[in-house]
Amino acid sequence: MKKNGIKLLSILFVVTIAFWGVGCQEQKEAPKPEEKAAAPEKMVKWKLAMTWSSTLTPLASPPLKLAKVLEEMSGGKFTIRVEGSEKHKAALGILDMVKGGQYEIGHSASYYWKGKDMAMVFFTSVPFGMTAAEQYAWFYYGGGMELMDEAYDKYGVISLPGGNTGVQMGGWFKKEINSLADLEGLKMRIPGLAGEVFAKLGVNVTNIPPGELYTSLDRGTIDALEWVGPAMDIKMGFHKIAPYYYTGWHEPASEMQFLINQEAYDALTPEFKAMLDTAIKAVTAEMYTENFAGSVDAWAQMKTEFPDIKVKTFPKPVLKAMKAAADETYDGYAAQDPMFKKVLDSQRSYMEKARVWTVISEYNYVKTSIEMDE
Amino acid sequence: MKKNGIKLLSILFVVTIAFWGVGCQEQKEAPKPEEKAAAPEKMVKWKLAMTWSSTLTPLASPPLKLAKVLEEMSGGKFTIRVEGSEKHKAALGILDMVKGGQYEIGHSASYYWKGKDMAMVFFTSVPFGMTAAEQYAWFYYGGGMELMDEAYDKYGVISLPGGNTGVQMGGWFKKEINSLADLEGLKMRIPGLAGEVFAKLGVNVTNIPPGELYTSLDRGTIDALEWVGPAMDIKMGFHKIAPYYYTGWHEPASEMQFLINQEAYDALTPEFKAMLDTAIKAVTAEMYTENFAGSVDAWAQMKTEFPDIKVKTFPKPVLKAMKAAADETYDGYAAQDPMFKKVLDSQRSYMEKARVWTVISEYNYVKTSIEMDE
Repeated sequence: MKKNGIKLLSILFVVTIAFWGVGCQEQKEAPKPEEKAAAPEKMVKWKLAMTWSSTLTPLASPPLKLAKVLEEMSGGKFTIRVEGSEKHKAALGILDMVKGGQYEIGHSASYYWKGKDMAMVFFTSVPFGMTAAEQYAWFYYGGGMELMDEAYDKYGVISLPGGNTGVQMGGWFKKEINSLADLEGLKMRIPGLAGEVFAKLGVNVTNIPPGELYTSLDRGTIDALEWVGPAMDIKMGFHKIAPYYYTGWHEPASEMQFLINQEAYDALTPEFKAMLDTAIKAVTAEMYTENFAGSVDAWAQMKTEFPDIKVKTFPKPVLKAMKAAADETYDGYAAQDPMFKKVLDSQRSYMEKARVWTVISEYNYVKTSIEMDE
Repeated sequence: MKKNGIKLLSILFVVTIAFWGVGCQEQKEAPKPEEKAAAPEKMVKWKLAMTWSSTLTPLASPPLKLAKVLEEMSGGKFTIRVEGSEKHKAALGILDMVKGGQYEIGHSASYYWKGKDMAMVFFTSVPFGMTAAEQYAWFYYGGGMELMDEAYDKYGVISLPGGNTGVQMGGWFKKEINSLADLEGLKMRIPGLAGEVFAKLGVNVTNIPPGELYTSLDRGTIDALEWVGPAMDIKMGFHKIAPYYYTGWHEPASEMQFLINQEAYDALTPEFKAMLDTAIKAVTAEMYTENFAGSVDAWAQMKTEFPDIKVKTFPKPVLKAMKAAADETYDGYAAQDPMFKKVLDSQRSYMEKARVWTVISEYNYVKTSIEMDE
């Protein structure tokens, strides 16, 4: 998923979400029993705005599931009406709308707020950053949650992990990249920090509305583009016209976030707080699996239908230059922005320690399985 | 974690779990309001038996957290008293006790029931099997949950994923393994299917109570042993006396299970069912992160204090022989047991498809990070 929200609006099907009633932002009291009974339970009706359209799964899945399980757990007393970008028309306005209280809760990704606050990029994913397991360990055991709290506190907003895409692919290229020279003047659609890195290496970085991407790539207006991964790329059809599919480097574990208005949260009963926190953890974990399984199936289908697709990894000198350009970019922001430096230092230090264990454990296991087949 | 439950009893601290009251297996009605109010809520008090002792985190963490969040979400109306193996003294009796209704819920690992039902091993982890991401995708999108339902249905028990250890290490060895000849006559503590595989390769597989393992290894009664991974191994001290730490092959993603008595589940209100299901998903996801982060820290500490520890991967000819022995073992069971064959076929087929995506995505990303540092 890219920082350019326009692409997220690309699939605009208005979904009638039948099981919610008319929304209401205030809390209402249930009819009072005439005699003392169980403590009277307040009805809570929230609205949730998400960056994605209502049908853009797996990104839209965590909020849709959250609403469903909260309604079930509370017996209909805590409901959330989920609005996709096709409804609120403000894909990149989620933080502002939750801060302002128009929506009690939102679902988006922190790196969309880099215009306000560059350090926010680290709570989603950065080029050459942590894997999903490393990043969750950093959030919960390496100081990451405390840093995210600090970053969001000034907005009066609570931010919680909201689902992870895993490693995103490096994109579709019409020609193979064999050296740094092949990047010079290459016209590529790649937004965000990755675009900044590629621009340093001579790539002509452009932005093109999602609806025009296929035609632009087909006609040679651009030579390459990056999107997400097989589960979401397959619908776009790029594999039919650009046969080189490069492995990922720029978004190794993009984490979404649920954003909650602090005052709305504080007004919840302890029971509803616990339901919300728990349900968010459950639906967050499920997104990774949904996207992983979707990519497994989509990749198998693509490869069967288009056997000429070639999976490539950038050559080592290209990767080293990309890594150097990324570090230069980070150090540039860190020099101007103390919070950016603080989060960068924390991630670098945790990642150095965690990557050792990643390599010893799962990486070596998979390596073994490959080598046995050789 | 191994199939031999005795080791799980090794750390036997009786914990007074202060926040639960006296347990009760039946459901009780709350005092009835005199006038019609909110639907009267039944109080539910369950007991949970787990294979682990109460302090054996991260294995004991999911049930302990489950009890905590259920109490919070229900405002104290749905409570679970968690009993560790130090209390019920039946670490490997969890399935029977949940089936019989002595406990409404349990926490264990399916491969402990391989004596009853060999196919159960696949719901935990098998040698050369799936990674955690692959296995969760198989459970939820590849038919795994349906097969687990089928396997547990005859016991009147619902089984749900209950936390994953990720890749377990191949064990501690006093001498380096350079060839198959080095395995001949090697005395090793390694239980379960992995022990069957090693026995086929000439290893003298033994079992030794956990409390005696350190001494046995130190005195040369055994030459090697396997345990879990850094987070749990560090407490045992093996790294001080056996410098070769082999990477994993035999339990790539051990999944725990919550077992629930079907009748007890059916008696819950829809709200409590939803709370239980949701909380189980949340605490299940958290265990992987807890164990991962624990291993990151434990490994950093071990390596600092004992810089002579050498991480090794078995040589390719040894791994190929282990893989052939594992396949022979599986095919042997499959020939006798239709359910074993059914689950084996399902896992083999899903894994073949899923591993391709694992390699393209996270494996290649980590490979890139290693090669850039070369």
